[in-house]
Amino acid sequence: MSFVRDEAGKVVTKRGTGGLVTALSGALQLSGGLWIASAMTDEDRKQVAKGRLEEAAGESHHDLRYLSFDPGTYDAFYNGISNRVLWFVHHLLWDIPRVPRFDRATRRAWDAYVQINRAYAEALAEEGERSDEAVYLVQDYHLSLVPAMLRELRPHARIAYFSHIPFADAGYLRVLPDPIREALVEGLLGADVLGFQADIWAANFLRCCQAYPGARADFAQRKVRWEGRQLRVGVYPISIDVESLRKAAVEDEVRLAARRVLRWRGDRRLLLRVDRAELSKNIVRGFDAYEMFLGDRPEWRGEVVFMAHLNPSRSDIPEYVRYVGQCRAAARRINSRFGRRGWQPVHLSIKDDFPMTLAAYTMYEALLVNPVFDGMNLVAKEGPILNERDGVLILSENAGAFEELGTHALPVNPFDVGQTAEAIAAALEMSEGDRARRASGLREAVEANRLDRWVQTQLDDLERVRSG
Amino acid sequence: MSFVRDEAGKVVTKRGTGGLVTALSGALQLSGGLWIASAMTDEDRKQVAKGRLEEAAGESHHDLRYLSFDPGTYDAFYNGISNRVLWFVHHLLWDIPRVPRFDRATRRAWDAYVQINRAYAEALAEEGERSDEAVYLVQDYHLSLVPAMLRELRPHARIAYFSHIPFADAGYLRVLPDPIREALVEGLLGADVLGFQADIWAANFLRCCQAYPGARADFAQRKVRWEGRQLRVGVYPISIDVESLRKAAVEDEVRLAARRVLRWRGDRRLLLRVDRAELSKNIVRGFDAYEMFLGDRPEWRGEVVFMAHLNPSRSDIPEYVRYVGQCRAAARRINSRFGRRGWQPVHLSIKDDFPMTLAAYTMYEALLVNPVFDGMNLVAKEGPILNERDGVLILSENAGAFEELGTHALPVNPFDVGQTAEAIAAALEMSEGDRARRASGLREAVEANRLDRWVQTQLDDLERVRSG
Repeated sequence: MSFVRDEAGKVVTKRGTGGLVTALSGALQLSGGLWIASAMTDEDRKQVAKGRLEEAAGESHHDLRYLSFDPGTYDAFYNGISNRVLWFVHHLLWDIPRVPRFDRATRRAWDAYVQINRAYAEALAEEGERSDEAVYLVQDYHLSLVPAMLRELRPHARIAYFSHIPFADAGYLRVLPDPIREALVEGLLGADVLGFQADIWAANFLRCCQAYPGARADFAQRKVRWEGRQLRVGVYPISIDVESLRKAAVEDEVRLAARRVLRWRGDRRLLLRVDRAELSKNIVRGFDAYEMFLGDRPEWRGEVVFMAHLNPSRSDIPEYVRYVGQCRAAARRINSRFGRRGWQPVHLSIKDDFPMTLAAYTMYEALLVNPVFDGMNLVAKEGPILNERDGVLILSENAGAFEELGTHALPVNPFDVGQTAEAIAAALEMSEGDRARRASGLREAVEANRLDRWVQTQLDDLERVRSG
Repeated sequence: MSFVRDEAGKVVTKRGTGGLVTALSGALQLSGGLWIASAMTDEDRKQVAKGRLEEAAGESHHDLRYLSFDPGTYDAFYNGISNRVLWFVHHLLWDIPRVPRFDRATRRAWDAYVQINRAYAEALAEEGERSDEAVYLVQDYHLSLVPAMLRELRPHARIAYFSHIPFADAGYLRVLPDPIREALVEGLLGADVLGFQADIWAANFLRCCQAYPGARADFAQRKVRWEGRQLRVGVYPISIDVESLRKAAVEDEVRLAARRVLRWRGDRRLLLRVDRAELSKNIVRGFDAYEMFLGDRPEWRGEVVFMAHLNPSRSDIPEYVRYVGQCRAAARRINSRFGRRGWQPVHLSIKDDFPMTLAAYTMYEALLVNPVFDGMNLVAKEGPILNERDGVLILSENAGAFEELGTHALPVNPFDVGQTAEAIAAALEMSEGDRARRASGLREAVEANRLDRWVQTQLDDLERVRSG
């Protein structure tokens, strides 16, 4: 939730649209909870002094409190550590012979990370004093230290932590400096319930605990003993808000966007990808696979368009700027190699355009979701819900979503460009019966995992751990 | 062992000088064993037709048999898979957003790898028919499939496999295409004893088995159950041949080389590194750390030289050519930033020069061994044995040697350039008493692990597994 000024200069609240916001606001609304977040806009910062904002949450009917930080400290916390160290380690994104390169700047950024995590822990402890029944839901890798810090301030607190991203295995975690690695693991071990998106990430965390002095991991029970307490490591795959998505897809803007998509595709087949412009999404290998597919199967030239719709992301981090350049170069290469009058093989669009995304979802014959590693990947859930052509999902085995959707998708090893090229061909050449069966399998799998159960199962597990 | 023509045109045998050759020839000599190897030289290939070469082994008093392969197949096996896929995966060397990129060429190279592994398994099975007591010692990642292939041909064979390099953990192994990953794991599981250089690699393998369908890993006992058999996962840190090393160090060539080293160093302190020019050795970050050290401590400028002695390696692989270029650039940068008349801060030498290496070993004040990941690293053992100045060892926590030598070394996280710069300063500024204590601790640790026990402990464990 952010406060912004509208065109008339009035301060209004603007609510995030992601599944996470929906799931958490829903839960907070039921329980009369409080959301603590970092002030992001100038208007947010003006609200900080007011403390707990009771009315401010507007339609969501829950309270809100902002923490405000010095911009330099926040940048070190957010870009320096969260996005350039923790995001990279958990997605295995480093070029190990050359990067990372830890130094004094890393240590200073780490101090900022510790400071901001402590500020959250203190605010949570303070707010929790109002109620003996307080339950804490700590969200994501930016706040990895909060569970242990909060535990220290309130030893009997009920704390659940949820990791929205992958979790690296014990071997790759060795890349981190010892003090950082130890603080991260012990930070998480402060929780009662540690939630992950998928079995693979939970298993990586358990194996990491197995190698960790003083921790005892029980794989069968998915429990860890640590400092006399017992933690539950749980898998809570997040879902999407199916109804609001369907509602959004019939708005006028989307119908207008659909016309634009139609102008591009003509009567050709549509291969679609929708992603943040993000190193872990494996965009370049996706282009390589499409190029190999067109090279191998001349009969498809002129019969298919690949629309790659990327949302700009982290453009203040040099690795991302370089990567977006490589994506553009790959798209240009394919267009110049295969393109001809009346047919542009790739349409690369790098901008925020949610109506266009929704329109494209309804129309694809094949959706390529091939991240190198991905906590969950909600595109793999959104696409099948809106698609109206029994489109085929090509899905990376290393996306958390693979555990729920893999049986109805065409699986790919994201590093295997040859296999991905084959999967594109298989998707476009699949019989109608097969396509229909898979498409309805996907829709049912997504609908079966209701978003409103996501918080509730974590709360239930929290009760169970504390009572036995 | 290779056959080459000497200057007079006579065919002579040339024996490898590494610890592995020494350890294995010693064991084979005692037992009257047979060494099966790939023919590498033209002369080797001429010997292939003769089959088992009884006299050829010369001083080693064991038999030798060459397998000869079509050069294209051998290249695909050796460079295509062994050195560009398996070496990279086990040392975590890939730039995951971009490399690897598996395709048809990977599959063809993999077929060659399978073919050559099968040729080894068949030759071993055939040779083993002569004796019911045959014991097989399969060496390293080039032959990962041999244990299972040999097991199929001779179900009751006693097979030990030794991995000289690290072993990746389960998460990073997911980068490999499924069929390759499965073949590798099941290939190794064909052995009775699986040997690793260090606990960390054995633990990674055990965790990998834990995640592997059908395998059951027992961490406390270091055992794996697989297909009704029980395997032992053992740690057998390889050592060096201390006596021959000491003998080699007093040869005339070494004395001549020592004069050259002395001309460079003058009366300054010597920081030394000796490595193959290899991506995993972390040469660039080593230079970065030295640059940071000189930048932070002006009092050391002019008082120290860094000699980086690199043996050329894998120069037919583009990644290595690029990396060597980056090493040269880093050395040039430091020399142009800090160098002055009469003082060149870095001496980078990229050539095979064993006498020079030995001479430099005797003279360093600090030895930098900072690989990103390294199965063992024998430089960390050779240096302390020959050094005459109580030189300090700066040692990566991710080198297998760290488990034996870490308590006497200055430990570094190899990704932490800041910490490495501090370690260089600490090494050069350490008190004489401390230096002497550590140096003798290192020598004793190396001498305590006798090379001739390396094969014997594997054979003992093989007996133990088979008898109970």
